[in-house]
Amino acid sequence: MASLEWTLTRAEALDESDVLAAVRERFFVPEGIVYLDGNSLGALPRSVPEALKSVVERDWGVGIVRSWEEWMGLPRSVGDKIAELIGAHEGEVIALDTTTIALSKLIGAALKLRPGRSVVLTAENNFPTDLYAISAVAALFERIEVRHVAPEDIGRSIDDSVAAMCLTHVDFRTGAMLDMAGLTSSAHEAGALAIWDLCHSAGALSLNCGRDRVDMAVGCSYKYLNGGPGAPAFVYVRHELQELLQNPLPGWMGHEAPFEFASSYRPALGIGRLMTSTPPVLGLVALDAALDAFEGVSMQDVREKSIGLSEMFIEAVFERVGMEFELASPRDPAMRGSQVSLSHPRSYEIVQALIARGVIADFRPPEICRFGFAPLYLSYAEVFLAAETVALVMDGREYET
Amino acid sequence: MASLEWTLTRAEALDESDVLAAVRERFFVPEGIVYLDGNSLGALPRSVPEALKSVVERDWGVGIVRSWEEWMGLPRSVGDKIAELIGAHEGEVIALDTTTIALSKLIGAALKLRPGRSVVLTAENNFPTDLYAISAVAALFERIEVRHVAPEDIGRSIDDSVAAMCLTHVDFRTGAMLDMAGLTSSAHEAGALAIWDLCHSAGALSLNCGRDRVDMAVGCSYKYLNGGPGAPAFVYVRHELQELLQNPLPGWMGHEAPFEFASSYRPALGIGRLMTSTPPVLGLVALDAALDAFEGVSMQDVREKSIGLSEMFIEAVFERVGMEFELASPRDPAMRGSQVSLSHPRSYEIVQALIARGVIADFRPPEICRFGFAPLYLSYAEVFLAAETVALVMDGREYET
Repeated sequence: MASLEWTLTRAEALDESDVLAAVRERFFVPEGIVYLDGNSLGALPRSVPEALKSVVERDWGVGIVRSWEEWMGLPRSVGDKIAELIGAHEGEVIALDTTTIALSKLIGAALKLRPGRSVVLTAENNFPTDLYAISAVAALFERIEVRHVAPEDIGRSIDDSVAAMCLTHVDFRTGAMLDMAGLTSSAHEAGALAIWDLCHSAGALSLNCGRDRVDMAVGCSYKYLNGGPGAPAFVYVRHELQELLQNPLPGWMGHEAPFEFASSYRPALGIGRLMTSTPPVLGLVALDAALDAFEGVSMQDVREKSIGLSEMFIEAVFERVGMEFELASPRDPAMRGSQVSLSHPRSYEIVQALIARGVIADFRPPEICRFGFAPLYLSYAEVFLAAETVALVMDGREYET
Repeated sequence: MASLEWTLTRAEALDESDVLAAVRERFFVPEGIVYLDGNSLGALPRSVPEALKSVVERDWGVGIVRSWEEWMGLPRSVGDKIAELIGAHEGEVIALDTTTIALSKLIGAALKLRPGRSVVLTAENNFPTDLYAISAVAALFERIEVRHVAPEDIGRSIDDSVAAMCLTHVDFRTGAMLDMAGLTSSAHEAGALAIWDLCHSAGALSLNCGRDRVDMAVGCSYKYLNGGPGAPAFVYVRHELQELLQNPLPGWMGHEAPFEFASSYRPALGIGRLMTSTPPVLGLVALDAALDAFEGVSMQDVREKSIGLSEMFIEAVFERVGMEFELASPRDPAMRGSQVSLSHPRSYEIVQALIARGVIADFRPPEICRFGFAPLYLSYAEVFLAAETVALVMDGREYET
């Protein structure tokens, strides 16, 4: 595959035949940079400013409290839009809270659903905040132990002491992807629940929570879903589990009849019971508009383009300055999310030099340069230029200045 | 005081001498309505649309991930602005999460700070979502009992079994205000912690959390602070307690060094440890701009105008149709927040009739018409007109149609 050398012409030819090329028009992509950090914060969809202006000036400014009639449905309607992107059914996803709060709720709820069991299983390299949440929630229960294992040992570590397996689908450092269907199935065989963190998956991969029988999931909407800085999280719970679920952080918005203002709590039917508080309308409206960028887009096409971009990037970088880096991501695209991580002792300085040249990547300790590929708004030509810029920075030893 | 009858002329004279009259210009107040629901959702401050446009189009659109450098400080800087309005010190307030999530954190943290004690004391008429949070958090601990008492019995119910007293300062139904200084002092005498919900107080009352030695507090910012629908909550913890506090829902943003991505949790110094997740930037920017409406405003003047408006409203309504209603709020303004509640068996229909006539109030079950007075943007003339409209609706028995 790497026999033919990468050139701008070859990259541009791929743009010519890119079925997603027109989707870029739905985004505001700043001039003069190549933005490879959409896995940290997605670019601004063009539909967002107008939607926010309208909700502020018309709905809040003129309607004020009367606009709640419209706003009240946002957590569910935004959730349903996300459901389509992760292979879930209508009514299985809701937008609320933040990823860590939402994950804490799910872990607490899962432990209540498996009362005889004593273990939460996770990967030792899970995203730090997930590890904090798992430990903190486990500590609230008597006799719950957190079992941290190497990612390759997860399958064989699932036994009938495990209440819940809590994993991140795509690793934030390396982009390594776990086998969601296989591990979920192993969890089920042992009677455990499978909770997945889809932060680095939703919007970039072709997910199928329904087919994979995922029990619960969370994700953030400000990465590949482009919902904006600090956008609300989403929660998925498959239909069969919803009525069994107790929200460990109940609040009036998850009540069956919030405006009854009853002193005792009765959970809402369905996914709504996971709500706690008044929904964050500005964030939800921005996210709602942002999700329209996915209209008519096939997630299979997104995944294929993501692989195309990252394969080209790896090949083009390694053709030029391959000796300089270790590939920290899996070489097999089937094992990789939508990012490429290169390891180098001077990664921090390399990323600074790249940013100075307009290639926005990021650094993750101890020594990873991380490049994220958002297929909705990146072109092959841009990603090729980014690879050339990496070569320039390395050839010029710009990280030494 | 009620010897002279209320007239529009008399109300307008009060507007003439109102030291806060000019502050109304800082708000977008829709034509044709009298908005007495600022205690549910505050009106739109004029500074908000431009601030949101700028954060979206410039910071997110152009800066994208690079703008985090600016955004990262928002929870604390917005918190410091709120601190000034509630009599707290710099570094004692932070904006984050939602009221119920934040309250749940505080209750959990308080129980950890008083390990030998077995009771959370609250008022039986506390805001429902607070009651849900108290019960749910208490249930996570072994042997913690929730003691619900009538508001008049709180003082005598504090004993040395109480770990935390958790109260709402101003009742959402009646506007009745508890004695924050006195009850906090009683809690301290018994060795208990005092946690206050300031949702219906912040921005309308002259609070002094520092002088009153309040231990912890939460509040929402979308009522009298005008932060917009579902704006982030705020949390106050007095300095002396901060380093002792464990966040029961830890997350990477409350870590001492979030960008180290360490697998183990080390809490940040100070109030920042109460953070969990990536801050909701759009909500924070709107709130930040909204708080500028308080610039140069004395909270003592706000409180005095609030009393002036509500006294006039009560007198004008009771002069005209007093026989029809029971006053559900305390008659003594010193015992009342910034709202007036009128009780009537047909309250729901009365509120609908008022809304049809452009007076935006709200209904709270079982039979309360609730009128909130936001002193920053309401005039005496408007509130007088609202009282006249109440009389019109009652005289015309419009609630029967």
